[in-house]
Amino acid sequence: MPVVRFSISLEKDLLGRFDNLINRKGYSSRSEAIRDLIRDSLVKEETGSPDGEGIGVITLVYSHDQRDLTDRLVDLQHDYYALIESTLHHHLDEHNCLEVIVVRGRVREVREMADRLIGTKGVKHGKLVITTPGWGLE
Amino acid sequence: MPVVRFSISLEKDLLGRFDNLINRKGYSSRSEAIRDLIRDSLVKEETGSPDGEGIGVITLVYSHDQRDLTDRLVDLQHDYYALIESTLHHHLDEHNCLEVIVVRGRVREVREMADRLIGTKGVKHGKLVITTPGWGLE
Amino acid sequence: MPVVRFSISLEKDLLGRFDNLINRKGYSSRSEAIRDLIRDSLVKEETGSPDGEGIGVITLVYSHDQRDLTDRLVDLQHDYYALIESTLHHHLDEHNCLEVIVVRGRVREVREMADRLIGTKGVKHGKLVITTPGWGLE
Amino acid sequence: MPVVRFSISLEKDLLGRFDNLINRKGYSSRSEAIRDLIRDSLVKEETGSPDGEGIGVITLVYSHDQRDLTDRLVDLQHDYYALIESTLHHHLDEHNCLEVIVVRGRVREVREMADRLIGTKGVKHGKLVITTPGWGLE
Repeated sequence: MPVVRFSISLEKDLLGRFDNLINRKGYSSRSEAIRDLIRDSLVKEETGSPDGEGIGVITLVYSHDQRDLTDRLVDLQHDYYALIESTLHHHLDEHNCLEVIVVRGRVREVREMADRLIGTKGVKHGKLVITTPGWGLE
Repeated sequence: MPVVRFSISLEKDLLGRFDNLINRKGYSSRSEAIRDLIRDSLVKEETGSPDGEGIGVITLVYSHDQRDLTDRLVDLQHDYYALIESTLHHHLDEHNCLEVIVVRGRVREVREMADRLIGTKGVKHGKLVITTPGWGLE
Repeated sequence: MPVVRFSISLEKDLLGRFDNLINRKGYSSRSEAIRDLIRDSLVKEETGSPDGEGIGVITLVYSHDQRDLTDRLVDLQHDYYALIESTLHHHLDEHNCLEVIVVRGRVREVREMADRLIGTKGVKHGKLVITTPGWGLE
Repeated sequence: MPVVRFSISLEKDLLGRFDNLINRKGYSSRSEAIRDLIRDSLVKEETGSPDGEGIGVITLVYSHDQRDLTDRLVDLQHDYYALIESTLHHHLDEHNCLEVIVVRGRVREVREMADRLIGTKGVKHGKLVITTPGWGLE
């Protein structure tokens, strides 16, 4: 992927404060920090469109003491099996577990599936992150 | 305020997509678009600290048909009068109005005041935006 | 507006923690706190559709030392004059000012206008809050 | 966990709109939908405190064509190995991969680790979700 260089102008104090911020965040260079801001603005725009392709990471916290909950979650995952790429299950303590489900599909479907999982009785907390397959973000 | 120029490197395709985005958003130059991303990251960090100084813009939607609501809102504003800078009132229709209150103080106090106003019975919807007085963002 | 009562069930500990939270936030009753959560979820859904009607509150921080900036902002506001309901201007210090513009129109247009204002060279920070005219949120 | 019932009052129209929303989202009951709103407000408050305990789900998209990137990511994970609970790696196409890292620790450390990973040169996009271990959310 060819890389181009271009220059931007910035007020001195603003640059000083930005350098402090990216230093605290552990960035190796200004270019990398600015690239991240740029990519994030592109992903935000792209995943705002319901018909675009999105990668969803669905995080669920629930207790496996709840009877039938695991069954309901498995049933739901079957309804959307074509979207599911992989799943990670992790035990938080003797009662609670965390499930992370990676899905891929139209943003609309990804949101719908996440809504249904998060809305399942017994799921204590759920969140969806939408990102993109990375094309055009080199 | 002195302005410095520096160059950054970016993958060609990524730059092309960013140029499209900032064109759609009406930016006059890449520098201006990147400055906005940088300032937004600084404001986000700064207003994350409860003891920092913040400017709050509190948006409230409510119906003035509700008896006593206006009184309660005025009382609350008196409790925090030292924070209030100005207020804008706007009639949305014959029942609903929008009130925008500009406040200034420690982020902690600004959030507390906004919570109390938004939580007042009869307020239909409320949101708080926190920004900074603009220092160091030249 | 007729009010209905219905009962919900909640785990005792969860209710205890929620009571603490709404107490800290200054709510007068559980009903009011839950109404706010419900309204916020409805507004989020409604203003997610670009063709719906929205009320926008655009917050801008900028320095009036910047020549031409005020002119550009006024020009832009003329381009979208049909959307503008009212404007509040506030001086933050001898250099910086805060402008709050209340607009009303399709969510798509409101976002476009906010993008253009926030993207104007010299505007240091800008944020858009979208809410609704309050119908159906009684 | 004992369950308590209590009643809340809500305007009829508002309830009708909420019933439509939760129906679209696939909730089985109003109680479950309101429980989710309540839990989300508690998690938001709890994970806002840097010293609280948090579960972080860090999502990274990157290309494994980038030499050294995998090494840098592994090094970083070693710096924070005490926080890491588990990791999920998924291939998006022949170039891009998705890595999901589940971490647990003080909110401050979780954010710091996420910042450093997301800021690593070559990571195209990254997001952090913070949730809680589920205690008190029964």
